[in-house]
Amino acid sequence: MKRHAANLITLLNLCCGMLSLFASCSGRFGWALILICLAVLMDNMDGRVARALGCSSELGRELDSLCDVVSFGVAPALMLWLAHPEGGWLLFLCGMLFAAAGAFRLARFNVTPPKKGYDGLPIPVAGAVLALLVFFLPGMPLWLLALLALLLAVLMVSRIPVPKF
Amino acid sequence: MKRHAANLITLLNLCCGMLSLFASCSGRFGWALILICLAVLMDNMDGRVARALGCSSELGRELDSLCDVVSFGVAPALMLWLAHPEGGWLLFLCGMLFAAAGAFRLARFNVTPPKKGYDGLPIPVAGAVLALLVFFLPGMPLWLLALLALLLAVLMVSRIPVPKF
Repeated sequence: MKRHAANLITLLNLCCGMLSLFASCSGRFGWALILICLAVLMDNMDGRVARALGCSSELGRELDSLCDVVSFGVAPALMLWLAHPEGGWLLFLCGMLFAAAGAFRLARFNVTPPKKGYDGLPIPVAGAVLALLVFFLPGMPLWLLALLALLLAVLMVSRIPVPKF
Repeated sequence: MKRHAANLITLLNLCCGMLSLFASCSGRFGWALILICLAVLMDNMDGRVARALGCSSELGRELDSLCDVVSFGVAPALMLWLAHPEGGWLLFLCGMLFAAAGAFRLARFNVTPPKKGYDGLPIPVAGAVLALLVFFLPGMPLWLLALLALLLAVLMVSRIPVPKF
């Protein structure tokens, strides 16, 4: 049981992401945002629990990235599309590029030896920021929202050094 | 360019998955199914192209799994929920377990040394079968659809030997 405690928390991150998709599909964008924030919390907890219990594993690390791409790549993109149906193909394209940049970043992170800080913006931060923008600034012009989603995507794949907290 | 050819095909797999989500959200389930099948094609091609060009990489392998969880885990689950809104929490739960089982399978696959066959049902097969069931048998009783989604999830995480084609 102890061996799988951290992996169960990682899977709870995925459950939050899937619930966020479900909430966005029902037009409940407040819930979609809350669930993405809960996923950030789970993502933060699983590593700490794994280290505290001494059950860090390669499988856990892989599972973590697979859950992250759903909760912080796909869920905010779907929120972006469904909260702005008038955005059509423009926002769809930006959401897709956001998720693709997130997936690329996670893949690069997984094959990079551990170091002090991060290269580029971590996907949980980018995903939470996009969800916050969509929810709290519903009147933002579409071109600006599209631009900000693209900026977050570029920041994720960039090599800008970001400190770990 | 040659170095990234296979990774670009892998990202096309993700694009098909994201387009499938978009199609499901617009109620175009035929398109959602076609796009999942196109993602299967891309998933099959990227590895072949990488081997043919001699540009297989650890990053490509990681990216492949991250795209697979979206195209064959999340996209069929969303199709399941949205094509059967009367399924409510029952189908939501089954879709979520399906995606979680797919993520676990991919993580396990990534940390297992390469061998002749597969352990358990590969996620592209499970995702395509679920999408085909949802589209071609719209009158299926909900309990049966839920049971089949759970069965596919169990087959993915099982250790049943499946030959490679």
